[in-house]
Amino acid sequence: MSVTVVGSIAFDAVKTPFGARERMLGGAAVHFALAASFFDEVRVVGPVGDDFGEPELAVLRARVVQTDDIEHVAGGRTFFWRGEYGWDLNDRETLDTQLNVFADFAPKLSPASRDCDILFLANIQPDLQRQVRAQCERARFVALDSMNLWIEIARDSLMSAIAEVDCLMLNDAELRQLTEEPNLVRAARRIREWGPRVVVAKQGEYGAAMITEDGFFALPAYPLETVIDPTGAGDSFAGGFVGFLAAHPDEPLDHELLCRAMAYGTALASYNVEEFGTERVARLRPDEIAGRVAELARITSFVTKPVALRR
Amino acid sequence: MSVTVVGSIAFDAVKTPFGARERMLGGAAVHFALAASFFDEVRVVGPVGDDFGEPELAVLRARVVQTDDIEHVAGGRTFFWRGEYGWDLNDRETLDTQLNVFADFAPKLSPASRDCDILFLANIQPDLQRQVRAQCERARFVALDSMNLWIEIARDSLMSAIAEVDCLMLNDAELRQLTEEPNLVRAARRIREWGPRVVVAKQGEYGAAMITEDGFFALPAYPLETVIDPTGAGDSFAGGFVGFLAAHPDEPLDHELLCRAMAYGTALASYNVEEFGTERVARLRPDEIAGRVAELARITSFVTKPVALRR
Repeated sequence: MSVTVVGSIAFDAVKTPFGARERMLGGAAVHFALAASFFDEVRVVGPVGDDFGEPELAVLRARVVQTDDIEHVAGGRTFFWRGEYGWDLNDRETLDTQLNVFADFAPKLSPASRDCDILFLANIQPDLQRQVRAQCERARFVALDSMNLWIEIARDSLMSAIAEVDCLMLNDAELRQLTEEPNLVRAARRIREWGPRVVVAKQGEYGAAMITEDGFFALPAYPLETVIDPTGAGDSFAGGFVGFLAAHPDEPLDHELLCRAMAYGTALASYNVEEFGTERVARLRPDEIAGRVAELARITSFVTKPVALRR
Repeated sequence: MSVTVVGSIAFDAVKTPFGARERMLGGAAVHFALAASFFDEVRVVGPVGDDFGEPELAVLRARVVQTDDIEHVAGGRTFFWRGEYGWDLNDRETLDTQLNVFADFAPKLSPASRDCDILFLANIQPDLQRQVRAQCERARFVALDSMNLWIEIARDSLMSAIAEVDCLMLNDAELRQLTEEPNLVRAARRIREWGPRVVVAKQGEYGAAMITEDGFFALPAYPLETVIDPTGAGDSFAGGFVGFLAAHPDEPLDHELLCRAMAYGTALASYNVEEFGTERVARLRPDEIAGRVAELARITSFVTKPVALRR
């Protein structure tokens, strides 16, 4: 079994109230792959430029991520993003986006990547997501992320891509924008009519919610006193969530398993935000993940005893 | 055992995308009292004017709320609020506030109200909250709500009031404003240093979180396809939360009991928002509450089995 992810591999420049990094490894596919690597073999598909070298590859390889399908575009430069977070870390301003090698990206999947059990289509142009999806015929679960840009400028393509996946993962605002429906339960119902049987709403500091045919499930974000850099939290969540599913090849991908996957996604996201970029997840230990998942169960459980109520 | 609440009794004019009411029973003390009435005897302390009559009292008495301490100010008019909600129901605009009889309110508690087991200080001027708190010496649990206005114009009074209660219940934005700390865990720690041993963050559509000396707890809002009017949701939450504690006079008010109380608060708030004003909670049945609490447990629980993770 294995997981394939297609998406951005990037250098990020990030400033938060707690510090700054001028150039660090980032990108949706990278954050996803590191998180998912705790569960199964992960193959990364995406382009990099001449500026991407051994130090960056080493971060992925240290977690045994397969980097054969990282395409080196000779003469090109790696995707670059610069952003700054405000006081409450929910305000994020993009200061610069340089597509570079991503501008002409045409995903090329090796036979091994095409043969994946689980596919994650990170946020890229939706027609590219469809091309990749079509190549992974054997995948038993395909999840897709997107962003406001594609909702605005490529809605039809995005709708076609969504129709071909099992799971749509978006943040709250994107779900509202996509469905023009402010109510999450209704928005999810509409999306499920389009095809995906699972809808995950990423809610930032409030956690995440999921709707399947068996109903609603939600978890708060893991409570942290120190959040340093939220960049990549959603992709780390996706990596934990999707990775967990890949680690259970013999179990049905039903509501119960998906709920457990939500807990692992939440745990991975919580580690991601504790330090800049990939720094924390890169040195994460499996026992730390298990501990945080157990703690998540504890902080959302309450005793259910009958109570005598007054008429 | 009994619960006393001091706070606003109001007429509200509310417009939402789903309809409007020009004049309906409202006010924090009313929403709180109806919700808490399912658990214990509730006494309401607050002023009304000549325009408040039998139809309004009948709504409270139908739920066996004690109205003896509702003070009729002859020649006065009842507190009036007009607000409008936007498309996503998180945007709320106050269009008119007429304090009326509330402008000169000086709380007068009967011996029965002073003898309460549990006291809820709904959002009123903090010096009045302190006067009431001082009169209820026997109360074993006192919870306090407030608002941005008092944080801005009466911070010192509010800080003194907070220091004298067991539980502070505010919404997220108010907690940030009060503590000047964007991180909820840190904000709660600071507040607990000021006196309250319990901090509850009301998070609107995302639910609520609680911090005690034993740690963090959170529940999502109950998922609803139809939210008609959020007015009073926070006070209904408080009524369910505080009322539940009152219904357990022989149990320690510890973390476990408080977690259970959070579930009842969440359930009551969910019914409140299903219709305008007090309409839904006024005809709520106890078995409906129990059903929604059980469902809340289900939609936040996941199976915890060990998972083989990769090093």
